Amino acid sequence: MKPIRGYVASGVAAGIKKTGAKDLGLIFSDMPATIAGVFTQNRVTAAPVMLCRKRIASGNARAIVVNSGNANCVTGDGGYRDAVRMSEVVSEALGVSVEEVFVASTGVIGEPLPMEAVTTGIGEAAKALRADGLPAFAEAIMTTDTHPKFESITGDIGGVPVTVAGVAKGVGMIHPNMATMLAFALTDAAAASETLQSFITTAVDKSFNRISIDGDTSTNDTVLLLANGTAQISLDLPEHRPAFQELLNDLFMRLARMIVKDGEGATKFVTVSVKNAPTEASAKAVAEKIAVSNLVKTAIYGEDANWGRIFMAAGNAGVEFDPQKVDISFNDVLMVENGMGRGKEVEAAASAVLKSAEFTITVDLKAGGGEAVYYTSDLTTDYIRINADYRS
Amino acid sequence: MKPIRGYVASGVAAGIKKTGAKDLGLIFSDMPATIAGVFTQNRVTAAPVMLCRKRIASGNARAIVVNSGNANCVTGDGGYRDAVRMSEVVSEALGVSVEEVFVASTGVIGEPLPMEAVTTGIGEAAKALRADGLPAFAEAIMTTDTHPKFESITGDIGGVPVTVAGVAKGVGMIHPNMATMLAFALTDAAAASETLQSFITTAVDKSFNRISIDGDTSTNDTVLLLANGTAQISLDLPEHRPAFQELLNDLFMRLARMIVKDGEGATKFVTVSVKNAPTEASAKAVAEKIAVSNLVKTAIYGEDANWGRIFMAAGNAGVEFDPQKVDISFNDVLMVENGMGRGKEVEAAASAVLKSAEFTITVDLKAGGGEAVYYTSDLTTDYIRINADYRS
Repeated sequence: MKPIRGYVASGVAAGIKKTGAKDLGLIFSDMPATIAGVFTQNRVTAAPVMLCRKRIASGNARAIVVNSGNANCVTGDGGYRDAVRMSEVVSEALGVSVEEVFVASTGVIGEPLPMEAVTTGIGEAAKALRADGLPAFAEAIMTTDTHPKFESITGDIGGVPVTVAGVAKGVGMIHPNMATMLAFALTDAAAASETLQSFITTAVDKSFNRISIDGDTSTNDTVLLLANGTAQISLDLPEHRPAFQELLNDLFMRLARMIVKDGEGATKFVTVSVKNAPTEASAKAVAEKIAVSNLVKTAIYGEDANWGRIFMAAGNAGVEFDPQKVDISFNDVLMVENGMGRGKEVEAAASAVLKSAEFTITVDLKAGGGEAVYYTSDLTTDYIRINADYRS
Repeated sequence: MKPIRGYVASGVAAGIKKTGAKDLGLIFSDMPATIAGVFTQNRVTAAPVMLCRKRIASGNARAIVVNSGNANCVTGDGGYRDAVRMSEVVSEALGVSVEEVFVASTGVIGEPLPMEAVTTGIGEAAKALRADGLPAFAEAIMTTDTHPKFESITGDIGGVPVTVAGVAKGVGMIHPNMATMLAFALTDAAAASETLQSFITTAVDKSFNRISIDGDTSTNDTVLLLANGTAQISLDLPEHRPAFQELLNDLFMRLARMIVKDGEGATKFVTVSVKNAPTEASAKAVAEKIAVSNLVKTAIYGEDANWGRIFMAAGNAGVEFDPQKVDISFNDVLMVENGMGRGKEVEAAASAVLKSAEFTITVDLKAGGGEAVYYTSDLTTDYIRINADYRS
């Protein structure tokens, strides 16, 4: 991964995780940056999320500190003070305003942060900051992820090469023990925080919000985007916006894809595409119902071209359509045409599609012009084992 | 099971199921009865559901015919004609108006009914009708159920013993291959169909609607209630209503409980009780989110007193409450008090509760007076196996 101008990062083992793995990550912008963010919609929010929500109003940032191994959630007033303390230690170590330090945590909930380890770890992480430190940061924020997730994309915006780099963690479909989807993106372009907010909201809706597919939103979900302007190009200019939006969408989609592929127990990556719904919102509702259905997901695991379950899930979205017009395809194999199955021969062709590791389920409702895409994996016996035994 | 006055029933093997098991059931009321029903909310509905919805407007019934092994769903106009034909064959065999015959189907979808087998089977079922035939009927409507489900309750209403008998099928949390929750209840009391509708709607909301907990509503879900008046007592009288409502609630709750306990792969029966929510509706929303959460259900399977997942699921219901006031108990073990975990010792006591086959999770939001109860099971590796391999 190519370093991104004006940012340094690190990841260290602070002793929060019992395994001795990396568990504390730090990102620092060499110069003042702007910031925007998207947070969990869960009513129960972790202390660091409350802190970030408060501080992000200023739109200014210099550093992000993240620990794994402990979510600092349902930890009361003491937990909030610990989150503030984390930012104070970063502020002292890096000589920046405490108000410009953002905090995230992920891991077990309901237990107080081991603040001595965290404090020492922040000191070490500050010393370890490097231009090529993002992969180490990505490693330090992992929980049950099997590998670190990071990506960097460079595009031409107004004749200038602009880079946007991102790291993410998450374990696919469902976040064990509220283990949280976290993503952090950095760009060397410049933008007002309001502009960044528009970029991040749009990109999250098309990526991370299309994979959190069992409705179990974590208490700690956080996505942040920083812009420090080292590339000397402003994204506030209307003519530069579409290109950057595309860049950010692409980055987030790549990270989201990594999360689904690394999903707990997952063996398949499936794109659910709904076409010709009454509206875009209703297309999204139908795609989501299909993508989250345990019955659809177990059928995918069983490599069973069970279109009846897809039909049933689509019917559960509360969307108006005529079942007798619906087409359902697995890749280019049309299995259901105008609401009727096309028989055993077609089913054999679809079964071949299901044996591949990646494929697309397309549902054409012929009820309007709304389209939406969702991403899902299969639901496997390994998923159950991982989640039944998570704390033991 | 004690016979219920004025009704006969039967169940026969018609050859619809490849296994040779019973697959066609018939219920007949010796005299004209009134009827009310509740049907699936799924946009995709099976042919027999469409037929029942149409006929139930008259409020009159004499017979119910049900086949298992084939859901007669997504079968187009031919499927609707087959459902009508089933009722015609019953009408001819029993000498009743075709408009008073109700039809239900459950099983594989997208395949035409084998009408020759169905027709012959109806003839045999008509000959087999007996006062003690409800258990055979219950057996004939099974799909992946491991045992037939029936129950009969008698209560005193206005000094007269009134019986309400019921049969149900369903496989717990999730209906494989849209396999449908079906329930049929019969009473010897008399009531106008409007009165019956009020009874059945109330009872279903407190029972079957509190267990269909993964959102995968089947295309064929049907609950019917018949009243034939042989007991010579009218439920239309306001003073008789509460007692009958209680009887029906009790019956449906017993059948619902059987369904959860027979849930695919299930090893635990868990009651989720939410107290002091802002409203009853919000209590139900919170209870449902907890009851359907894959993370909660896998933790129950793992006998892990992971209250963090319960807290998280509660926070996802879109209901206003203060996380710092929430109490969470497993039976009488208070694990979370005012939003904070009570530590390792309490967790050990809760783990003991989780080892039992039945227990209650209570969430007290301290945000109002709304209460609701939901019933769920664990999510197990056997569930995945059953549903991945269903059609193979």
